[in-house]
Amino acid sequence: MHKFVEIARSNKMKMKVLVLFVATVLVAYECHGSDYQKFPLQMKTGFGGQYSNEVACASWRLGVEANNVVKWQTVPAACGEYIADYVLGDQYRSDSKTVNQQAYFYAKSLKLTNKDVFVLDVDDTTLSNLQYFANHGFGVEPHNTTAFKNWVLDGEAFALPETLKMYNKLLALGIKIVFLSERPLSLGDVTAKNLKEVGFNTWEKLILRDPSEYSGKLSFEYKSAEREKLEKEGYRIIGNVGDQWSDLLGSNKGTRTFKLPNPLYYD
Amino acid sequence: MHKFVEIARSNKMKMKVLVLFVATVLVAYECHGSDYQKFPLQMKTGFGGQYSNEVACASWRLGVEANNVVKWQTVPAACGEYIADYVLGDQYRSDSKTVNQQAYFYAKSLKLTNKDVFVLDVDDTTLSNLQYFANHGFGVEPHNTTAFKNWVLDGEAFALPETLKMYNKLLALGIKIVFLSERPLSLGDVTAKNLKEVGFNTWEKLILRDPSEYSGKLSFEYKSAEREKLEKEGYRIIGNVGDQWSDLLGSNKGTRTFKLPNPLYYD
Repeated sequence: MHKFVEIARSNKMKMKVLVLFVATVLVAYECHGSDYQKFPLQMKTGFGGQYSNEVACASWRLGVEANNVVKWQTVPAACGEYIADYVLGDQYRSDSKTVNQQAYFYAKSLKLTNKDVFVLDVDDTTLSNLQYFANHGFGVEPHNTTAFKNWVLDGEAFALPETLKMYNKLLALGIKIVFLSERPLSLGDVTAKNLKEVGFNTWEKLILRDPSEYSGKLSFEYKSAEREKLEKEGYRIIGNVGDQWSDLLGSNKGTRTFKLPNPLYYD
Repeated sequence: MHKFVEIARSNKMKMKVLVLFVATVLVAYECHGSDYQKFPLQMKTGFGGQYSNEVACASWRLGVEANNVVKWQTVPAACGEYIADYVLGDQYRSDSKTVNQQAYFYAKSLKLTNKDVFVLDVDDTTLSNLQYFANHGFGVEPHNTTAFKNWVLDGEAFALPETLKMYNKLLALGIKIVFLSERPLSLGDVTAKNLKEVGFNTWEKLILRDPSEYSGKLSFEYKSAEREKLEKEGYRIIGNVGDQWSDLLGSNKGTRTFKLPNPLYYD
């Protein structure tokens, strides 16, 4: 954990330099909800009625994962340390592993055809932005569109290790991979390069958002429409993996969906 | 916790006597999935690669709540103690509170009409079967239909305290309550009596399953059909609260759904 934070600090300097020099602001790239529902901290928990941040923050995280706590903009300040410990520790890795394992066990149980695809989201499903969030208060700070875009342009995101294992196992089963991301078309080259550099070497399609086609559309509307196109082209979406509920709701969502953990932001 | 388990033991004797004397087997009343997907324990977790039951079981529980781990029949044996500690402790209560609070905050934010209803499930959403599960290995033992029916016929389930608070707050807002349960029609009297005795004093409708109408239907199909009927009668389902994803999936599911925690069984 300490080593990670040190790397985070050194990258923070790099990030500041980048922010100063990257003058071109590309199309707006939002990945956060706009309405804000405040989480009531601290809660009295249990029969003793004592206050506990950790118990309340664990409930908040569970609420996020089951889509009960919605449209939040930042991690509650009182949960900042809890969330940092979570994402840097064993539990986040294990939670990610469990979901990816379930996806693979499910895929393995199917009778497959050569038009079967798994749809995978990119940010925090395939490529991890944890390094960026380590530099920006682990979700407690308000979202900074420019800084986040600069991070993406850096192309230095690492692979989510448990997703990478699952991806390779799906490929071995003969399943085709479609990446479907909120990233705009203009970030196609850096995204493809970053994916390949960390081990996601091949794909059937890498679908990015065309700002002119989906202007003003919500994330789940854009993703639903693109999944519908896939199905019209004859693909069968047998699995759909994302870290946000907006990846998994809407139409044409696939035979089964898998929600990876992400307590850092809500889209 | 110790007191709870003692009560559980004394009820276990009562239960055994009941099982001997209740000879009439009523309509089949299943509340568990039929396919079984085994959870891989123990998992190596984290970068150190050590084995941890607690971390793996926490991942299993999260997987259940976000509907990634599906169609399981029993709590994995290695997670029995973890799950018992969870449901008897502060975290379960806090998790339930968070979801119920979110439901209330949401309801309070709406412009309400006199046809607005919240649909609430009964078992482990409104009435707690925790006492039953304390007598039957906290979900680790295979489901015993007869014993569970006898428990329900006892009519001794207590209220889920955080749901009861939310229920009273919804009533105070003028929202109508519809209970929609998998319990068969034949259990109507005991269910109504149990609900009233623990504080759920009033409702617009208490909908139970008519076995002749819904023979062979899955839980979510029955519930979807009954919610459709409600909407055809002019009700607007503004909220839908359940402890199983089958309460919340399908059609006519309401403007917003709320998943209460339940790591004891899957339907």
